[in-house]
Amino acid sequence: MPQYIDLSRTIQSGMPVYPGDRPVELEQIASFQEEGHSNFLLTTGMHAGTHIDGPMHLSGSLIRISDLPISHFACNGYLLNVVGQKTIHLQEQQVHHLPPGSALLLYTGFDSYFDEKAYYEAYPALSEESAHLLANKQIRMIGMDSPSPDYAPFNVHKILMEKQILIIENLTNLAALTPFKEFELLAFPLKLRADSSPVRVVARISDRSTR
Amino acid sequence: MPQYIDLSRTIQSGMPVYPGDRPVELEQIASFQEEGHSNFLLTTGMHAGTHIDGPMHLSGSLIRISDLPISHFACNGYLLNVVGQKTIHLQEQQVHHLPPGSALLLYTGFDSYFDEKAYYEAYPALSEESAHLLANKQIRMIGMDSPSPDYAPFNVHKILMEKQILIIENLTNLAALTPFKEFELLAFPLKLRADSSPVRVVARISDRSTR
Repeated sequence: MPQYIDLSRTIQSGMPVYPGDRPVELEQIASFQEEGHSNFLLTTGMHAGTHIDGPMHLSGSLIRISDLPISHFACNGYLLNVVGQKTIHLQEQQVHHLPPGSALLLYTGFDSYFDEKAYYEAYPALSEESAHLLANKQIRMIGMDSPSPDYAPFNVHKILMEKQILIIENLTNLAALTPFKEFELLAFPLKLRADSSPVRVVARISDRSTR
Repeated sequence: MPQYIDLSRTIQSGMPVYPGDRPVELEQIASFQEEGHSNFLLTTGMHAGTHIDGPMHLSGSLIRISDLPISHFACNGYLLNVVGQKTIHLQEQQVHHLPPGSALLLYTGFDSYFDEKAYYEAYPALSEESAHLLANKQIRMIGMDSPSPDYAPFNVHKILMEKQILIIENLTNLAALTPFKEFELLAFPLKLRADSSPVRVVARISDRSTR
């Protein structure tokens, strides 16, 4: 049996969001004891918690996240340990093994600051040269356990999006992937007619994945 | 490479919801042209579109959908063709091959009525005897391309939930699974502190799945 590792943050009212974004609200609107069934109402932007940025987020593209075929959100994934690096400068030898159509997860360890102000103010940034390197590799997705690969004006986002590379932000639990040479990354977004989507991100580990 | 088949409905403003439920709203709140980035705001209950019912929905359980381990939402799946049946009476020989911990998808074909009033008023119902049969089989999930396995007072829901069986509703595209003897069902909900969750449901087909 394959093993599944959850890489997603819990979604709840009052969770930290990107500065200026609308707060997340998750409110119980019916209970089994009173109404005979439970239900909740969720109000959220597309960029709260663990989510996937689609091409429409930072480009003139009109492609909604629901327009992309489902196979786009599953591929071989590889973890790269960049813990402690304030600016991430990728070297060719760190990414030479990435096949076209694969996913790269940057393990920064910065998710441990999620509940602190620093999380959204002092996260590690990926250099523009690194973004070009990954764009040339034709990877399909990049993800990180931090809020974003860059700061305004978001040139790294734009370099990646121009090549249709999807960006997964606010991952967590990436340390759990360190024993595995490769895995299957499953990042199926809700089928929303929106630019991007909250997502449950899962690594699927087959028996042959051990490093 | 495995093949992935999407079994989920598109989520958009004004989509049909269960009678009495809050409407779904998905509104663009920022555009790349004007604000320099796109974003949308989603307001939804847990039971609109393709979603998974957790134990808290129709029982006194306090387990939130975010409390369940991720491995709970992936297992071997099997399709059963019940197209045209107004009441579904399962026989032992139709389900004898289901191992404990597996998922059964009921292919009713009723999803073709999604945009009509009949969809939420005249959907096929699973008999209580069938629910007991599946509960005894210790399946993990049941899904259907219709709004619900039963009508108020939802005894089928309660029989299944008492055994921690998750219920996936409003699936679509199940005809695409008919060539496959088995598949891996992936139904990872958002990690919401809620009773249930909207979900992108995907069948993962490995090379050995052909009937």
